[in-house]
Amino acid sequence: MIKDLHEIYNNPDDYENKEITIQGWIRNHRKQKEIGFIDLNDGTDFRGIQLVYDKDLKNFEEIQKLHIGSALTVTGKLVKSARKEQLFELIITNIKLEGDCPEDYPIQPKRHTREFLREQAYLRPRTNLFSAVFRVRSVAAMAIHEYFQNNNYVYVHTPLITTADCEGSDQMFKITTLDYNNLPLDENKKVDLSKDLFGKQAYITGTGQLHGEAFAMAFKKIYTFGPTFRTENSNTKTHANEFWMIEPEIAFCDLNGLMDIEEEMLKYIVKYVLDKCPNEIEFFNKFVEKGLKEKLTSLINSTFKRITHKEAIDILKEAPNKWEFTPDYNEDIAKEHEKYLTEYFKVPVFITNWPKDIKAWYMKVNDDNKTVAAVDLEVPGAGELMGGSQREENYDKLMKRIEEMNIDKETVDWFCNLRKYGGCYHSGFGMGFERLLIYLTGVENIRDVIPFPRTPDNCDY
Amino acid sequence: MIKDLHEIYNNPDDYENKEITIQGWIRNHRKQKEIGFIDLNDGTDFRGIQLVYDKDLKNFEEIQKLHIGSALTVTGKLVKSARKEQLFELIITNIKLEGDCPEDYPIQPKRHTREFLREQAYLRPRTNLFSAVFRVRSVAAMAIHEYFQNNNYVYVHTPLITTADCEGSDQMFKITTLDYNNLPLDENKKVDLSKDLFGKQAYITGTGQLHGEAFAMAFKKIYTFGPTFRTENSNTKTHANEFWMIEPEIAFCDLNGLMDIEEEMLKYIVKYVLDKCPNEIEFFNKFVEKGLKEKLTSLINSTFKRITHKEAIDILKEAPNKWEFTPDYNEDIAKEHEKYLTEYFKVPVFITNWPKDIKAWYMKVNDDNKTVAAVDLEVPGAGELMGGSQREENYDKLMKRIEEMNIDKETVDWFCNLRKYGGCYHSGFGMGFERLLIYLTGVENIRDVIPFPRTPDNCDY
Repeated sequence: MIKDLHEIYNNPDDYENKEITIQGWIRNHRKQKEIGFIDLNDGTDFRGIQLVYDKDLKNFEEIQKLHIGSALTVTGKLVKSARKEQLFELIITNIKLEGDCPEDYPIQPKRHTREFLREQAYLRPRTNLFSAVFRVRSVAAMAIHEYFQNNNYVYVHTPLITTADCEGSDQMFKITTLDYNNLPLDENKKVDLSKDLFGKQAYITGTGQLHGEAFAMAFKKIYTFGPTFRTENSNTKTHANEFWMIEPEIAFCDLNGLMDIEEEMLKYIVKYVLDKCPNEIEFFNKFVEKGLKEKLTSLINSTFKRITHKEAIDILKEAPNKWEFTPDYNEDIAKEHEKYLTEYFKVPVFITNWPKDIKAWYMKVNDDNKTVAAVDLEVPGAGELMGGSQREENYDKLMKRIEEMNIDKETVDWFCNLRKYGGCYHSGFGMGFERLLIYLTGVENIRDVIPFPRTPDNCDY
Repeated sequence: MIKDLHEIYNNPDDYENKEITIQGWIRNHRKQKEIGFIDLNDGTDFRGIQLVYDKDLKNFEEIQKLHIGSALTVTGKLVKSARKEQLFELIITNIKLEGDCPEDYPIQPKRHTREFLREQAYLRPRTNLFSAVFRVRSVAAMAIHEYFQNNNYVYVHTPLITTADCEGSDQMFKITTLDYNNLPLDENKKVDLSKDLFGKQAYITGTGQLHGEAFAMAFKKIYTFGPTFRTENSNTKTHANEFWMIEPEIAFCDLNGLMDIEEEMLKYIVKYVLDKCPNEIEFFNKFVEKGLKEKLTSLINSTFKRITHKEAIDILKEAPNKWEFTPDYNEDIAKEHEKYLTEYFKVPVFITNWPKDIKAWYMKVNDDNKTVAAVDLEVPGAGELMGGSQREENYDKLMKRIEEMNIDKETVDWFCNLRKYGGCYHSGFGMGFERLLIYLTGVENIRDVIPFPRTPDNCDY
């Protein structure tokens, strides 16, 4: 019976001193005259296993020639390892080569730079670092699904293709089936988009929020979890043109209720990942971000701070720091401010009630008519992790904002109607999944937490 | 404390005869002179609850004016219902109107056609049918994640944006940030795509398989679950331009192993949905597809049949039917054939070893050099539900196929290299999520199982 290493490590008593068969790839191979040691990794667990073989095997000579990177099926007896750093080793009785690997294989048992590995995106999950990153990505995704499903949320697949330009069409990719070199023109010599598949300009979207709200008005609590796109021509550590986002939307929920959910969700995810990926977290803690484990553990046990934007600016103005950007009651806060505030409170900080002019049109305007019921969550070491708001539920007020902010009314007509048809107070937030992963792993470049990242001029693989 | 109805129905003993507060929307309102009955639905459970109020309430007159569709916060005592068809009713002590709804609200307590409701895509989840469909969609998605995560698979977010045209670029949407009415031209007066964001033509993809294989060669077992796109200009009940797909890929897995996984996964999903959505399934069984429940239950307890394409054609040729399409050893099988075969065996049927010329270039060619190790799963009442294959793991054979089938070698270079670097025998399949939902719900039009469907000339909302 072929077993996953993960299954064996989770149930050691069932397999110790038994004969087992496993399949995986050679990470390292140390040869001595009468004995050899192969580090085999099967991908189901961060930990590989050491294979021990000796001269008694009839194909000893052949085995000694096995290359790093090769795929094997191996059978042997699982025994306690003498080495402290591993639980078991496998005393080999049979090895079968399933796929060879040449000696110029790019992934060798030595330190490769992350830049080099980015060039080998299709091979890098075979390294410790990216094995850990992408397993955490998978486990964190599951944590998110579990949290919401356990709390009666409905997972909604909001559309990626949209014709609404409600968030600014210049930030969205246009999609078409037309031939660029043979575009149909209308009577004004403009491109005739009525000839395109959807009969008008279509985009791939940067948010599912509007559609999410429609479903929240039926299911009370919904979440989305899917890819989103931005055309931003920006080469920074935190920007990618394709990334994944989680956008919950909750009916009968005000800003305080929203913060409760954000806090509970984040703690759930962090706890889940600590529980399910202890070896990965140890690895990050040792080699990527010293103190990561302590950072994550203390988050679970903390109570997040809640302050208003005004209070935040007060604190920043009183700070002894020399700011590059002067704190201002009417402005956004800068990265340096975020950093100061999270270090000041030493816990995650919710900042609420932002100046309305710097926030989105659909957010609920507070009674002061100057601020909106928005909330950003600032997390120590990661900056803004989530952004959300109570939504404007009053049809007339929403219409006023749409006019003030020059939104194309027609494309969001149905969205506004939600306020007429049993619309109630409701709130929602968005969390960039990669930003969460950067926080969870300590890996600071978004290119290193996305399997095949897309950034300007970079769409290989 | 405000409660979800789902929580109350799951723990009836905790709430019976207690005072509770719930929030939701009015589905129906029946008024009598001294008493009134409101059907309230809070979206967390398929079942709503009947609110009972009488003249003793000081705002009785006001309450009697409440419109269908309005949002309410209600407090009352939860008592056993006298009516057989519901567990509880709520004897109201307080009602607060959270959001009014005009009398011309499109969703009234009567039968609406599905065509009409498609026009009201943003409101239709408030009906019984679409409430059931989209909750099953959410629960089935969770079943899929659970199945794979429980079995040590890694969830991989393969990229949506791609520059590889390996599956035929004419089937993919082109994406761009260029202005159609002001396109940059190169020296040959062709559109200069080097000026576009990625420096070349980019598409949104129809599959994550190739990228999935790269990750399977590191994690052994992976799955994808995300949106996919096709430009197909086709208005049928089963085509949409945007849909979701699940694509598992498994290293050290042959065609038989793949069928084992497909069978186990499908049974897991069906059982999960039957367990978690009994009321939704009852509803479909009664109003959408008579016999649905029996169909699903019998699937769980069946053993799927496995036959070769040749055996399938033999059976079809011997059948008494007059075929529109003559069964042919070198051809695909038609819908009428699928139907016959699943009725013939009365269980899901795996058909293996297809003529290589009608299948994809990356499938493993069998020793006969005529067929490939491909498998389609045909399910009674739904036709083809999954399609998969063992992949060609031999580099030279794959190269030969690439030449034979005129694939652009350069764009799949890295994919082919996977065969050189410890490539082992491996297999994978794809399942269209909407096809699964059509099977699970009995709803036969793909437009009715996607929240906001995109089809040719139809991209509203």
